[in-house]
Amino acid sequence: MTIRILPPTGITSRPVPSRVLMGPGPSDMHPRVVAALGRPAIGHLDPAFVEMMEEIKILLRYAFQTENALTFAVSGPGSVGMETCFVNLVEPGDKVIVCRNGVFGGRMIENVQRFGGTAVIVEDTWGEPVDPQKVADALNANPDTKAVAFVHAETSTGAQSDAAALVRLARDKGCLSIVDTVTSLGGTPVLVDAWGADAIYSGSQKCLSCVPGLAPVTFSERAVERLKARRQKVPSWFMDLGLVLEYWSAPGGKRTYHHTAPVNSLFALHESLVMLKDEGLENAWARHRLHHEALKAGFDVLGLKFLVREDARLPQLNAVYVPAGVDEAAVRKQLLDRFSLEIGAGLGPLAGKVWRFGLMGHSARADNVKLCLGALAKVLAGMGLAVDGDAAIAAAQRIYIDTVR
Amino acid sequence: MTIRILPPTGITSRPVPSRVLMGPGPSDMHPRVVAALGRPAIGHLDPAFVEMMEEIKILLRYAFQTENALTFAVSGPGSVGMETCFVNLVEPGDKVIVCRNGVFGGRMIENVQRFGGTAVIVEDTWGEPVDPQKVADALNANPDTKAVAFVHAETSTGAQSDAAALVRLARDKGCLSIVDTVTSLGGTPVLVDAWGADAIYSGSQKCLSCVPGLAPVTFSERAVERLKARRQKVPSWFMDLGLVLEYWSAPGGKRTYHHTAPVNSLFALHESLVMLKDEGLENAWARHRLHHEALKAGFDVLGLKFLVREDARLPQLNAVYVPAGVDEAAVRKQLLDRFSLEIGAGLGPLAGKVWRFGLMGHSARADNVKLCLGALAKVLAGMGLAVDGDAAIAAAQRIYIDTVR
Repeated sequence: MTIRILPPTGITSRPVPSRVLMGPGPSDMHPRVVAALGRPAIGHLDPAFVEMMEEIKILLRYAFQTENALTFAVSGPGSVGMETCFVNLVEPGDKVIVCRNGVFGGRMIENVQRFGGTAVIVEDTWGEPVDPQKVADALNANPDTKAVAFVHAETSTGAQSDAAALVRLARDKGCLSIVDTVTSLGGTPVLVDAWGADAIYSGSQKCLSCVPGLAPVTFSERAVERLKARRQKVPSWFMDLGLVLEYWSAPGGKRTYHHTAPVNSLFALHESLVMLKDEGLENAWARHRLHHEALKAGFDVLGLKFLVREDARLPQLNAVYVPAGVDEAAVRKQLLDRFSLEIGAGLGPLAGKVWRFGLMGHSARADNVKLCLGALAKVLAGMGLAVDGDAAIAAAQRIYIDTVR
Repeated sequence: MTIRILPPTGITSRPVPSRVLMGPGPSDMHPRVVAALGRPAIGHLDPAFVEMMEEIKILLRYAFQTENALTFAVSGPGSVGMETCFVNLVEPGDKVIVCRNGVFGGRMIENVQRFGGTAVIVEDTWGEPVDPQKVADALNANPDTKAVAFVHAETSTGAQSDAAALVRLARDKGCLSIVDTVTSLGGTPVLVDAWGADAIYSGSQKCLSCVPGLAPVTFSERAVERLKARRQKVPSWFMDLGLVLEYWSAPGGKRTYHHTAPVNSLFALHESLVMLKDEGLENAWARHRLHHEALKAGFDVLGLKFLVREDARLPQLNAVYVPAGVDEAAVRKQLLDRFSLEIGAGLGPLAGKVWRFGLMGHSARADNVKLCLGALAKVLAGMGLAVDGDAAIAAAQRIYIDTVR
């Protein structure tokens, strides 16, 4: 029983800097959500907790606009939500069309391959939406395709793809659709039943403005049938929907112990979903749109150009080109150090070329937009660029004043 | 863009009842940990967050008593910690000896089989520790065994197995060891380097008294070598240690984005590990032992018998037989409804036969022990049993007074 490793010295409780989060997530949490997170823990089998789980399922069905019975929150980050979809629906030998126009399409390909499937890759340039014609061609060329997977809202670029069209193409060929809505849910329309989509996952820390670490998911009846018809056991115990179901959706309310749910994070998710429901989805979408318009008006004044063409632009994820000659990392460092403002860098082929400005959930508000425009102008001016921060803020302000809400 | 699913009515912010958590986990959180959880979210790539991750690694090495470089917290419940060990270390065709003396050994078998391995099952009665002789026999009968997996502290029964002996048997045959320390870490000695164990996982919500949803893990150099020598890609993107490593332990501190870390839960984990370090492991173990002795003195007075023999009994998880003729579920319901006290039920073959009383982390304190004895005596007396709650509490109190600490 001897202690070999002595207690480390010099480590104490850590204060955390107060940041404004305008990167690609996590977003600022509303004080009500923070308060919910800090409620005393209760047992995951406590009747009070089980009631709350039922409400979370109902609230998520509203957020996803679906009547799917199998709608719940996976106890893990969005990546676990993604993996839950693929590990349950892809079997060895299955052919899956995966659309890649950013980081997360690439991750989908990894998922298909790791579960023994064959990925037919439909490529689009980063910053472009997925081209439905290429998907149609791929489906025609691969009649044995089992599923079509795509990212509705690419967090790495800010491009939104036409989910309704892509899902329709898949359905017309009898394929399932697997859709990433991590960055779209709560910020821009996600209409699961209207689209007819089959397996949809999202994240808690984007437009829901909840604590990171939960992945809302929903599965259609067709997806559940595919799951029931599997030839092999799901190669994961934790993510096997058959087992999770007995915990989240047991018939008659009799729950089988599966794992210890992250109760505090679920308190926070419940609160953020209540807030979304009280605001109303249409109002939440309009709010994201409004703050995007204001930010865009300011960016226009500053001479910043968007990566994504206007009709495919996500209001909640604004990728703009770094002006020529500017050290983009130095700008981000100054924004963080001087203004405690976090924005996002470019990823992959866009590294060093773009910044990503998130306006997600509670981060989508006028204070943030104006702080961002003023701070960015100040930093760029300090680097010798001729930019007018006051004019940029005034342009944003005009959008707010002119918008009768 | 039409809303089909209307906002649900009648769902509002939920108050949460204040419970005393003396079940098998989650345990009560210390107010310092709750306060840490509610700190404002910051980005998972923020320098302030990255520094904290480094400290968490150091603090976990102390808690696990190891110098393993690969020591971090998986972003998921303990079950994901388990699956991370098995999915990385078991390949199709691998033979793994799994010791089953409760629920979690059974889950290990599922893990081995789902990743294509063959499980050689060593059975012991629920409530007994793993018999090292049976493991030695299994190793002799299966010289092609690749790993030995067992649960150090069976949460479903409260039995502690001799981890040092079991790991030694595995090592002597050139096998890796995979060890579940979900319920032991911080409550009873977990000496990873002294044991020579290879892949160890735990949970945040037991004796660390942190929020549920994180799984501390540590891997030996031997385990990392096995990982590097894999013939196939790990059949999981999220749990592939090769990828996670680039995020948690990138050389030169250059981190690759992997997933959005559950930052608030990690704030809480950092705080709970600082508290454990400040208390000192030996003191934390002694505290769990002390409250166990007090609870046991009270149970003796009430005539309650332990499931596990004395030398294998976990101080932090006390399974006792339900007295003959008592409706055990009614007792638990009364404890919850009248005293807001949560205790655990029996699982599997022990369902209806035992109760499980947790004394984990911040739940291991005199107030809880005395509340539990008094409340349980009151409920049992109401059911007609001749039990003396005052005498039980006095017996517990004598342990506290007599123990010079």
